[in-house]
Amino acid sequence: MTTLDLTGDVVELTRTICDIPSVSGDEKALADAVETALRSRPHLEVLRDGDAVVARTSFGRGTRVVIAGHLDTVPIADNLPVVVDGDIMRGRGTVDMKAGVAVALHLAATLTSPRYDLTFVFYDHEEVAARLNGLGRLVRNHPEWLAGDFAILGEPSDGTVEGGCQGTIRVKITVPGVAAHAARSWRGSNAIHSAGAVLDVLRAYQPRQPVVDGLQYHEGLNAVKIEGGIAGNVIPDLCTVYVNHRFAPDRDVAAAEAHLREVFAGFELEVVDAAPGARPGLDRPAAKEFVELVGRPPQAKLGWTDVSRFATLGIPAVNFGPGDPLLAHTDNEFVPIPEIRQALRVLESWLS
Amino acid sequence: MTTLDLTGDVVELTRTICDIPSVSGDEKALADAVETALRSRPHLEVLRDGDAVVARTSFGRGTRVVIAGHLDTVPIADNLPVVVDGDIMRGRGTVDMKAGVAVALHLAATLTSPRYDLTFVFYDHEEVAARLNGLGRLVRNHPEWLAGDFAILGEPSDGTVEGGCQGTIRVKITVPGVAAHAARSWRGSNAIHSAGAVLDVLRAYQPRQPVVDGLQYHEGLNAVKIEGGIAGNVIPDLCTVYVNHRFAPDRDVAAAEAHLREVFAGFELEVVDAAPGARPGLDRPAAKEFVELVGRPPQAKLGWTDVSRFATLGIPAVNFGPGDPLLAHTDNEFVPIPEIRQALRVLESWLS
Repeated sequence: MTTLDLTGDVVELTRTICDIPSVSGDEKALADAVETALRSRPHLEVLRDGDAVVARTSFGRGTRVVIAGHLDTVPIADNLPVVVDGDIMRGRGTVDMKAGVAVALHLAATLTSPRYDLTFVFYDHEEVAARLNGLGRLVRNHPEWLAGDFAILGEPSDGTVEGGCQGTIRVKITVPGVAAHAARSWRGSNAIHSAGAVLDVLRAYQPRQPVVDGLQYHEGLNAVKIEGGIAGNVIPDLCTVYVNHRFAPDRDVAAAEAHLREVFAGFELEVVDAAPGARPGLDRPAAKEFVELVGRPPQAKLGWTDVSRFATLGIPAVNFGPGDPLLAHTDNEFVPIPEIRQALRVLESWLS
Repeated sequence: MTTLDLTGDVVELTRTICDIPSVSGDEKALADAVETALRSRPHLEVLRDGDAVVARTSFGRGTRVVIAGHLDTVPIADNLPVVVDGDIMRGRGTVDMKAGVAVALHLAATLTSPRYDLTFVFYDHEEVAARLNGLGRLVRNHPEWLAGDFAILGEPSDGTVEGGCQGTIRVKITVPGVAAHAARSWRGSNAIHSAGAVLDVLRAYQPRQPVVDGLQYHEGLNAVKIEGGIAGNVIPDLCTVYVNHRFAPDRDVAAAEAHLREVFAGFELEVVDAAPGARPGLDRPAAKEFVELVGRPPQAKLGWTDVSRFATLGIPAVNFGPGDPLLAHTDNEFVPIPEIRQALRVLESWLS
């Protein structure tokens, strides 16, 4: 087993943990190394569930900050071991998200007297089906391990704070008709034509752009699938439109569903799936200080991310980590080394 | 081989040819019997192509009438041999369309000095894929065998004259978009939403109901299929709408296509398939007399039928035959015996 030096140089630590392959489902070697290294730090209590490792302080501070990151990567594309080229570290996992994990490991090991109590969460299976997600499993099995007032996910965010996330709900709208032979179409009722009224609603819809906890979100309402038709000579008796609504975190899933039922009043509507958004929580005192230290205006996170899993526990959460998120999953994945050091500097200043 | 008595009772002849099974692809036995029986009549020239048999007079009359019927049936459903029950003859092929074929065979054999020159056409493969259709094969291989001024197809029409048929054209309308992640939908352009404009056209369309050669047709313009969508979280970059236009026989396929290109101006439109309609030709003198003898108002044929194959040769054509067309292909298929005799009586009066 590779021994991790958590207190040394964070860039070397990034390289070391990148070079322990940990494609989703194969995180054990890295999780073992992380657990062992953390257990050697007496100020930390270390817990484990599968290949998720949790380490936390218990200094009796009035506020607890949670710092989380996933250990797994997408499959290796002949891009390990990592290569350092000037200010760039290149290879699988560098940006998504072992640089963020290395920063968190270094903080866990070195902040022996932090300003707030701290909980560090390193988890498995982020890059695969949602039902396998290690953070989701901790939410189900041990929600008390994740308790806190504010959470930071170390996903790459170009060094800015990306706050919260929007929720998503998918509904299936079923438009009926009456089948008939196309030669006598007036004896039937064309379901595809009737679905035009659903598209009318979508075309006329004005999405909200609400400000939530200081960040501006941007909603959306879109057909993502349409299907109808039986045969080339038959008036269709059914047309189905699948609609995806992305909603700002000032609404929960129930409110989003109610909104859709109002917008599509008169249509048969069925919820296919939904995931709540997450408030950024940047109005909390601890979060405000953090954002000031980052020194750049925070951005609303529009896509759905694992911060929403904290939101289900009532914990506001943000993304903050080194590197460009658009490089995640690319074969050319890399992280700028100065951004690793800068992320560590900001978090150290805030938490010391 | 069953010997056919063409000059005897037309009802017995109907029974005899029903009891020679002739499901599509298996018409040879019946075609052989028909050919042999017709060859015994000295006033007829008999021709054969595959399992299609053509018999014609050559008296030098100024007008030629074509009488056609198909020899094949849909598969037998334990409904042969036929059963006569009072005024009803029941079993596979009775209504679709061996009663009509029996009437034609009887006329061919007995009208030894007809008022017009006559051509009788008995063909195969009507109940299966259009490319196999025996009448279509004759149009391709021997159009001169089908020459005439007016044609009657003996398909069941409840004893009324159903004139001509409407044409059909199917087009594929491709609506483009720009893909984007559904979390940032405004960066894309939703092709399904844009397809709403196609449905607008369809919903607003007022179909013509023109009178052609004295019969009122009823056009139609309908989406018969719609599909679009890539994944539940992607703004679709493509939506496809298949539209079927049924058009009255005062327009040919080219005019119908031009009409659609005008109606859907600005959209990318591709013709998938098309078949011309057929004018009823009831304004021709011979046809007028025939309609008067039938004694019931003729009806426009809205669905596409084999009369259109005559139209491609410039020959107006109508459906006229005993029995209810709605019984065709049902396991309960039957023909009222008085309608067989009545059809024969009308045609004999007209052609003698």
